[in-house]
Amino acid sequence: MDRKQVAKATTKVISSYLTYQAVQTVLAQLTETNPPLALWFRSFSGRKIVQDGEVYLLALLAEHQELAFRVMAVREHLVEEIMDDLPEMVLHDIKHKNSQHRKQQLEKLSQLSIIEPNSNLEPSSE
Amino acid sequence: MDRKQVAKATTKVISSYLTYQAVQTVLAQLTETNPPLALWFRSFSGRKIVQDGEVYLLALLAEHQELAFRVMAVREHLVEEIMDDLPEMVLHDIKHKNSQHRKQQLEKLSQLSIIEPNSNLEPSSE
Repeated sequence: MDRKQVAKATTKVISSYLTYQAVQTVLAQLTETNPPLALWFRSFSGRKIVQDGEVYLLALLAEHQELAFRVMAVREHLVEEIMDDLPEMVLHDIKHKNSQHRKQQLEKLSQLSIIEPNSNLEPSSE
Repeated sequence: MDRKQVAKATTKVISSYLTYQAVQTVLAQLTETNPPLALWFRSFSGRKIVQDGEVYLLALLAEHQELAFRVMAVREHLVEEIMDDLPEMVLHDIKHKNSQHRKQQLEKLSQLSIIEPNSNLEPSSE
């Protein structure tokens, strides 16, 4: 996959994830304001997994247009709120975790190289 | 969930997805350069689903450090290559899809309102 395809596929993953987060936000709001609708929405969203955000929204539009429009508005709001910070956050996250993995692996290897020279010896009697 | 928590959770989803993409990139390279290792790696990555990138990498580090370091390098490269464009792409994607959903829903409703006035009538005889 080239750079453009990866960027496009990643965009789809983020859109679907923000749709899932929008569903969670609307669910939390409804639990306060309209418990019977929250119950219905929880059951609906349990049946339709929010794996592909657009497929989920099409199903919701067919069953409850008002909720679908609300989820769409919330996800648009979410993307506007968080996207600007994300490049820096993801870059930092991956660099930091890579460096942690490398450090831990080096520590493991250096412990092994301390243990290994004696590994063929019988346990010393105390 | 507040804005910060959503941004953090989204960061984790993107990191894991880019780890998955890095695995696919390394797999494609190995298929050309080292088919037996590609076979092993494909089988390993089939057993460990790349749902949580860090859990996957820890497992790979324990079994094949060189490949794990390679996946880490590729995901760092990927994030540097694509992240700058993503905010604009995701914003556009969500706005565009929302507007498509709204448009299609309006079209459906206007078709319904054309059909409905006659819906109680028998089919007209030709």
